[in-house]
Amino acid sequence: MTTYFPEVKKPIRYEGPDSRNPLAFKWYKADRKVGGKTMAQHLKFAVAYWHTFKGTGADPFGGPVYDRPWDVGATPLEVAHNTLDAAFEFITKLGAPYYCFHDRDIAPEGDTINETNRNLDDIVKRAKRKQRETGVKLLWGTACLFAHPRYTHGAASNPDPHVFAMAASQVKRALEATVELGGTGYVFWGGREGYISLLNTNMKQEREQIAALFHLAVDHAKKIGFKGMFFVEPKAKEPSNHQYDFDAAHTLNFLREFGLMDRFMLNIEANHATLATHSFEHELVTAAGAGKLGSLDINRGEEGVGWDTDNFAMDARSCTLAMSIILAQRGLRYGGLNFDAKVRRGSFDTIDLFYAHVAGMDAFARGLLVAQKLKDDGVLDQIVRDRYAGWRRGMGRKILQGKTTLTQLETWAARQGEPAKVSGRQEMIEGILNDYLYATKID
Amino acid sequence: MTTYFPEVKKPIRYEGPDSRNPLAFKWYKADRKVGGKTMAQHLKFAVAYWHTFKGTGADPFGGPVYDRPWDVGATPLEVAHNTLDAAFEFITKLGAPYYCFHDRDIAPEGDTINETNRNLDDIVKRAKRKQRETGVKLLWGTACLFAHPRYTHGAASNPDPHVFAMAASQVKRALEATVELGGTGYVFWGGREGYISLLNTNMKQEREQIAALFHLAVDHAKKIGFKGMFFVEPKAKEPSNHQYDFDAAHTLNFLREFGLMDRFMLNIEANHATLATHSFEHELVTAAGAGKLGSLDINRGEEGVGWDTDNFAMDARSCTLAMSIILAQRGLRYGGLNFDAKVRRGSFDTIDLFYAHVAGMDAFARGLLVAQKLKDDGVLDQIVRDRYAGWRRGMGRKILQGKTTLTQLETWAARQGEPAKVSGRQEMIEGILNDYLYATKID
Amino acid sequence: MTTYFPEVKKPIRYEGPDSRNPLAFKWYKADRKVGGKTMAQHLKFAVAYWHTFKGTGADPFGGPVYDRPWDVGATPLEVAHNTLDAAFEFITKLGAPYYCFHDRDIAPEGDTINETNRNLDDIVKRAKRKQRETGVKLLWGTACLFAHPRYTHGAASNPDPHVFAMAASQVKRALEATVELGGTGYVFWGGREGYISLLNTNMKQEREQIAALFHLAVDHAKKIGFKGMFFVEPKAKEPSNHQYDFDAAHTLNFLREFGLMDRFMLNIEANHATLATHSFEHELVTAAGAGKLGSLDINRGEEGVGWDTDNFAMDARSCTLAMSIILAQRGLRYGGLNFDAKVRRGSFDTIDLFYAHVAGMDAFARGLLVAQKLKDDGVLDQIVRDRYAGWRRGMGRKILQGKTTLTQLETWAARQGEPAKVSGRQEMIEGILNDYLYATKID
Amino acid sequence: MTTYFPEVKKPIRYEGPDSRNPLAFKWYKADRKVGGKTMAQHLKFAVAYWHTFKGTGADPFGGPVYDRPWDVGATPLEVAHNTLDAAFEFITKLGAPYYCFHDRDIAPEGDTINETNRNLDDIVKRAKRKQRETGVKLLWGTACLFAHPRYTHGAASNPDPHVFAMAASQVKRALEATVELGGTGYVFWGGREGYISLLNTNMKQEREQIAALFHLAVDHAKKIGFKGMFFVEPKAKEPSNHQYDFDAAHTLNFLREFGLMDRFMLNIEANHATLATHSFEHELVTAAGAGKLGSLDINRGEEGVGWDTDNFAMDARSCTLAMSIILAQRGLRYGGLNFDAKVRRGSFDTIDLFYAHVAGMDAFARGLLVAQKLKDDGVLDQIVRDRYAGWRRGMGRKILQGKTTLTQLETWAARQGEPAKVSGRQEMIEGILNDYLYATKID
Repeated sequence: MTTYFPEVKKPIRYEGPDSRNPLAFKWYKADRKVGGKTMAQHLKFAVAYWHTFKGTGADPFGGPVYDRPWDVGATPLEVAHNTLDAAFEFITKLGAPYYCFHDRDIAPEGDTINETNRNLDDIVKRAKRKQRETGVKLLWGTACLFAHPRYTHGAASNPDPHVFAMAASQVKRALEATVELGGTGYVFWGGREGYISLLNTNMKQEREQIAALFHLAVDHAKKIGFKGMFFVEPKAKEPSNHQYDFDAAHTLNFLREFGLMDRFMLNIEANHATLATHSFEHELVTAAGAGKLGSLDINRGEEGVGWDTDNFAMDARSCTLAMSIILAQRGLRYGGLNFDAKVRRGSFDTIDLFYAHVAGMDAFARGLLVAQKLKDDGVLDQIVRDRYAGWRRGMGRKILQGKTTLTQLETWAARQGEPAKVSGRQEMIEGILNDYLYATKID
Repeated sequence: MTTYFPEVKKPIRYEGPDSRNPLAFKWYKADRKVGGKTMAQHLKFAVAYWHTFKGTGADPFGGPVYDRPWDVGATPLEVAHNTLDAAFEFITKLGAPYYCFHDRDIAPEGDTINETNRNLDDIVKRAKRKQRETGVKLLWGTACLFAHPRYTHGAASNPDPHVFAMAASQVKRALEATVELGGTGYVFWGGREGYISLLNTNMKQEREQIAALFHLAVDHAKKIGFKGMFFVEPKAKEPSNHQYDFDAAHTLNFLREFGLMDRFMLNIEANHATLATHSFEHELVTAAGAGKLGSLDINRGEEGVGWDTDNFAMDARSCTLAMSIILAQRGLRYGGLNFDAKVRRGSFDTIDLFYAHVAGMDAFARGLLVAQKLKDDGVLDQIVRDRYAGWRRGMGRKILQGKTTLTQLETWAARQGEPAKVSGRQEMIEGILNDYLYATKID
Repeated sequence: MTTYFPEVKKPIRYEGPDSRNPLAFKWYKADRKVGGKTMAQHLKFAVAYWHTFKGTGADPFGGPVYDRPWDVGATPLEVAHNTLDAAFEFITKLGAPYYCFHDRDIAPEGDTINETNRNLDDIVKRAKRKQRETGVKLLWGTACLFAHPRYTHGAASNPDPHVFAMAASQVKRALEATVELGGTGYVFWGGREGYISLLNTNMKQEREQIAALFHLAVDHAKKIGFKGMFFVEPKAKEPSNHQYDFDAAHTLNFLREFGLMDRFMLNIEANHATLATHSFEHELVTAAGAGKLGSLDINRGEEGVGWDTDNFAMDARSCTLAMSIILAQRGLRYGGLNFDAKVRRGSFDTIDLFYAHVAGMDAFARGLLVAQKLKDDGVLDQIVRDRYAGWRRGMGRKILQGKTTLTQLETWAARQGEPAKVSGRQEMIEGILNDYLYATKID
Repeated sequence: MTTYFPEVKKPIRYEGPDSRNPLAFKWYKADRKVGGKTMAQHLKFAVAYWHTFKGTGADPFGGPVYDRPWDVGATPLEVAHNTLDAAFEFITKLGAPYYCFHDRDIAPEGDTINETNRNLDDIVKRAKRKQRETGVKLLWGTACLFAHPRYTHGAASNPDPHVFAMAASQVKRALEATVELGGTGYVFWGGREGYISLLNTNMKQEREQIAALFHLAVDHAKKIGFKGMFFVEPKAKEPSNHQYDFDAAHTLNFLREFGLMDRFMLNIEANHATLATHSFEHELVTAAGAGKLGSLDINRGEEGVGWDTDNFAMDARSCTLAMSIILAQRGLRYGGLNFDAKVRRGSFDTIDLFYAHVAGMDAFARGLLVAQKLKDDGVLDQIVRDRYAGWRRGMGRKILQGKTTLTQLETWAARQGEPAKVSGRQEMIEGILNDYLYATKID
């Protein structure tokens, strides 16, 4: 069988923190135990089919630049077969346990819905076999409801119900493919479910249309026995000027409004947080606070840049805080850490894909180690607990229990006089966090 | 009696579009009928006590610069009396029908809660008399829960329940003052109800604390017979790095989560929309779509500037679109158009306050005229209606009614083939809007 | 001959402000005299070949969506011929006097430099004939040094001098084509002359490389008798994360550093100003202040959006201020108003191109009328002149002439005591500007 | 003598990376040798008088919150004396070698220029003695030309030359104080040297006025024997909407335009870079590339926040890259690392000042260690050198030497055919950098 990555002869190995080999792990060691679970169990890394195998390097100012050896074939389906082979070779050599796909990444759209469905069926069959052979698993599937010209004005939110129906057909099949391949999640990312101009848009109705699609998907999931979770992936903007799932809170508002909280969780992406002017942690905590942190798209935006750059995440602080939030909720049952990241346009070579994923896996592995240490030591947790101690007793408790009135509170306040000014100790806490982040004794 | 604005001898008059007198209205004419109501009925302008009478011109890089003739007195209460006189002189000469206040704008905080309450009572009594004498009304009241050092870590969201109680006491009294003065709204703007750092913050609990305060206020409102509406005013950030009421959708999410949708609407501010990277229209449409557009803070942010500048709104397009949204929902029952805007630090003179408000009232008056014309002609509305026509019949209707399935939709889609690509006509619509905005025949 | 725009049978006509025909001008009337010159002389509109005839509607989340009737042909050259026909039909029907192009817009790149050059020669010959037949003129030309994969790491700034030479070859030919077609300007827009990451970049040297190309172009211009002006078009970022010509001031710094001020001016784009967090006016005034405002790319960015949207400019205030700045410097000798704007992805139809350009031309025509009126009345100019009066006499004059010392100034200051606080009158000025912008008596 | 920091009994000590004492250094050890110099020689830390000793915690939504024990006294001068004592106690206990001040931080403004000057003289005398006693040195001085109401419309750029003269007087005295105290730098930060609105501003002349002040300062420096360097500190905006020294490139443009390159360098602040949408590294490299990196204001902005937050810098990557740039230019002769950072409003206690500075010094000390290791190993440097190898030979060299023409380049390019696509290896480089940043063997 053809090898697409001859420069990586064997699976990437763990060589430890002192290695300077960019094709080795310094921190990620699949079977290393951290807080009772292995790293592989904690870090459900998934390779993103679209960026890693279907990415072309194109951007708004230039077309495709990569010459991928798998991007060849007499027919679109043959190209898809080669791409599938390359994908499983890469994932296996990398040692990532999962992958994620859009329907159109893995199988080409045909001239008719029937042909499209046949293409998908063909690939799903092959992928299933590949999964069995390699042990690689599907984390989640999704439908690409933004690339085709018909979705220019939206998919579910399109002014034309005919387009909605086309989208519905894709969701149906992508969901069935996800079930067939054992995926534990199904994602909705509404790239064009938003508007370019409010002047020609009925926003209220468009949101109702999207809710209708979600309900249809839930119904279908029940019918076909999908036991996994639905995820919505918020993004503030791009390509639309406003996307209805702007951020975690917008999405929660939507799910609450349309009675969808039961079957949906959120898939939080770091760079999408940035586009909403939030930190990644903010979005993660928002989702987790509502019991809805389902999965993560791990990447990073460029500082000061206003579009989605999808760089590989490498920042110690950010990776550590993300893992802390995940540890605090005891893991991600349905989701994982999906590499929704792409190598730069100028990283032309297939080997660059390895450099990027290896460094990214290491960044989160180190983040996990520090997060576990923070958890074990409990220093930061304790500081926060102590800070709010007043709410677990006396009047604080009564307030939260709804057992008081403004009148009682005024009397209580008047009796006590001016509250003490208590430092929030932010700089001390940041210093402590740094001590952990750059400690010499992690390994 | 002292006059504080001797340079404006008589109330500002309407002189029509050809006037070049900066102290005359070109468009605003209180009794002019527009679509069956007078301009005064449509445009419930309120002067913001804090900016216009209590503003000092201070900013983070320099202290107070204004020498207001009313900012004098032997005691804080005497200063408050003079300020009240100046306020009613200004509002009357301007011809605005309403004002808005924070408790601390109109009455000084004392050394104890009791003293503070006495101060407030004193001023409320005087203000009531002034209202009766002048016909000026209170639009809404609120409590200043951000300026005092005790609120540094938040008011309702403070880690210390003692601070919560102080805030509760203020809310109680500010609400009672609002009732006494006939205000139809009570606003919560949570300037420090957010965080500076997630590292020392329990966001989940802080949001519960805020909800507790809102419920307490609702209970108290019932007890004291407040018939008006509660408003939450979203703002993305500043002074906190993240404010929990980030924008309209965040706030709706909060109200839904904590069962507060019944008694609350939103007070949408233009500059706060900008800080959330939204347009003013976006926030207005979001609130209106949920039936929750209660009131507006009319101002404007500077292009490319990342903090709240609170400039006076003057842009024709923005004012027109705002008025269109208000016309579409048939007005603002409980709220109005509050000038949450301040003259620049370098606009030292009291006359500058007149220049600013006059130009601002004119901008919205012209916006109303264009909006009414757009509504009467119905051109833009019809374009949007036509665009979504497919959803009012056949399969479109079924989808919205929940009477179909993914399977049926796939069959339907497959039968119909590829949907037509229909232009969204954005540029044509923008051109038409411009024709209205700059038409010569408005007046 | 084929007509590509059958829906527009005759050239767009002027129908005056009361017309509601979206295919007629309300303000633009080519032969109307404004301040001694015709509108056509003031408003040197140019249609941008790339957006209007070569735009596909593609964006980062979806491929081409337009079905242009001219985008057909057995060979790339035949497509180019058809496109050229369509372009001149459009420009003629629109009534714009100019167009602008990149080499790759008008003629396809071949397999070798020689073939490419032959293609360009062929098209230039045809375009010249078309220009003669229609009276349409070339405003400026440029070379596309960003789309081809070879320019991924920059053109002049590429780490590989071989790529520099490819770019040099393009500049040579594009400059020669510009001369042949009578263009009065040649533009450098350095889309990839910047960096994606500082970590792999030698910024100092890359800037020297760019300077080398500019000097080479100046030398060649002399040799071939180019009498026009070179323009640099600043842009902050996109596609690079930092472009060396970030904004007007960065570009002036570059021109000064490398001794290029003599032969270069700036081409200022509105949306690029936005990306640098500046207003359009700021960039125009910066360039004009250095005597370097050469040409304008007229478009507009979306509020709150961090990438280049290139909307058609329609805002009255912005168009008026731009025209005021141009009037103040007595026009644009070498440049004009280039429509570097595109219809939205969803404006699928060729007729949308007309809607957009007509509304855009009208917006600037109205801007010109208001700007001329502002100039004639001189109200705003006088306010500013008066404000700085102190600098034209006494100590103010001495300071600017360099005829004093810190010691003398201290003595002078001490003698005079505290300066008066003089209002900047910003709100009054904004109100006056609004009076002009929305006056009923422009026409 | 009073102690103001009784909770810190002895100077902060080095305890090494394994310490968890927030009042000890883990990385900073003054006498540790790194690349031939001690840490103290490399890291010329300066404490910022304004934030650390004069900061009140006030922000736009609330007044002062700190109760500093030194902020007491019967007269302003007595307060100044106490503050000076506290400052030297703090700096000494912290172990920082330098401090920086504005004239108004250290000495109160009087009712007249003469009184003001006497106040300054008094304090300078005391400070000189304190410096001698403690060994603490002045890094640089500056004048506060933004806080006083008279500077509302600018200092040097004010429309009124009288205000210019007031500023000139301050600069004169602040410069003299700097000389007296042995400062090696004098900084201009033009907080209000910009505009709020272009409508009332003559930008061209305002920039000339600023240049006039700089030339006056240069002349005076010569007269009084100032051997140090002048620095301009760029900032994009705030409090003005546009500051003329927007960023490093704007400032260089200004210095070039007005013939000031000889006597001026730049003082680059991290948070100011952020406000210009640049990274800190970008600004440092821009300044260094022009031979003008003179000094650094070390701090950090909050992610997604549009104003100057001046947090303490703690990020390993950023600190390391900054130190790498400094090492590459062999240090900062005239400047240093000034802590232009403040504790958060809610960090009420004086001990918080220690937590913050200790963590900040450690972050840069660790950055220095990693930077030196990167330099010693030369891995990243070599990658960049190799990337541009083509420019040091053959045609590349000729281009940079100006010894070729477009015609020759075209011939050369045509002969060679299409250039190879060479990967920029960004992800590999980022991975290598991470290996160094989080290596276990730094210490």
